Amino acid sequence: MDLTERTIEKTQIFDGKVIKVEEHIVTLPNGKETVREVVKHPGAVAILAVKDNKILFVEQFRKAMEKCLIEVPAGKVEPGEERIETARRELEEETGYTPLQLSLLKEFYVSPGFCDEFISLYYTDTLVASNELSPDEDEFVSHHWLTLDEALRWIDEGKIEDAKTILAILNYQLKLRK
Amino acid sequence: MDLTERTIEKTQIFDGKVIKVEEHIVTLPNGKETVREVVKHPGAVAILAVKDNKILFVEQFRKAMEKCLIEVPAGKVEPGEERIETARRELEEETGYTPLQLSLLKEFYVSPGFCDEFISLYYTDTLVASNELSPDEDEFVSHHWLTLDEALRWIDEGKIEDAKTILAILNYQLKLRK
Repeated sequence: MDLTERTIEKTQIFDGKVIKVEEHIVTLPNGKETVREVVKHPGAVAILAVKDNKILFVEQFRKAMEKCLIEVPAGKVEPGEERIETARRELEEETGYTPLQLSLLKEFYVSPGFCDEFISLYYTDTLVASNELSPDEDEFVSHHWLTLDEALRWIDEGKIEDAKTILAILNYQLKLRK
Repeated sequence: MDLTERTIEKTQIFDGKVIKVEEHIVTLPNGKETVREVVKHPGAVAILAVKDNKILFVEQFRKAMEKCLIEVPAGKVEPGEERIETARRELEEETGYTPLQLSLLKEFYVSPGFCDEFISLYYTDTLVASNELSPDEDEFVSHHWLTLDEALRWIDEGKIEDAKTILAILNYQLKLRK
């Protein structure tokens, strides 16, 4: 069965700093019409960064949840920027460390029901301290270094509750067990 | 450091079938002001369903990406519905199987940079065929049964590229290895 939904009409609802919101009127496989709400996002990277057997996390206030979340360093891709460059830049800005090498671990959509945000998750264990800690002017973060066991406990205790971060930690656990 | 961003003003931009979009003017920890774009989502469940050592996946067209994605069965929480009931209902509607038991595996935010969508991931290996295959009238799906090894290969090949689905598969891999 061809599951494609064909677009009859697109309307832009909102054009923000980060996201754009659209309504798409579509034809379904059975010929009927419906409306899809679509959020366009520039995409992002995340970095699983390890040094001396500890994983580096950033804690920051997330307005949508009205609370702080503990996540792997991450950030949005700028226009024209290669994703591996985004990873290097975001790691430096958010943590003050430069990675000598970065390898791609996984890529995934995080909320495909309505949003096209696509995340590239990188790994590095070659961190060098730079003097470049310079978060965006509206970004305030604190840092945590956790062993794998501590990170797994923080997941179980609900202290780490971000999907890309849990995915990164499970991926690392499997890598170490190989 | 207190990382809290205090709300000065909220404006609702869009009130859709699935999402609501807001702009929040906030005071940052350094006293400056900025604008946060916030998407409010009702929350969702996902189900890792296993039978005869195979995992059940649904494939459906995702308008935001303009392509089909292969995911674990999932769906939005209805107003007033317990999440475990959402899991039972969505699994029946999307796959025609009823779970005799469901256990909670993990819970996580999927896109905390701008959205409050929170997913509860359940596990079941007690599937009973029901005659209730009745997707929403705007939902068209096909099904795949994969072994763990096949699912891992589909991740590596980029055929599975949904975060909650990858997280569920890695979680299952770790469970089997224990």
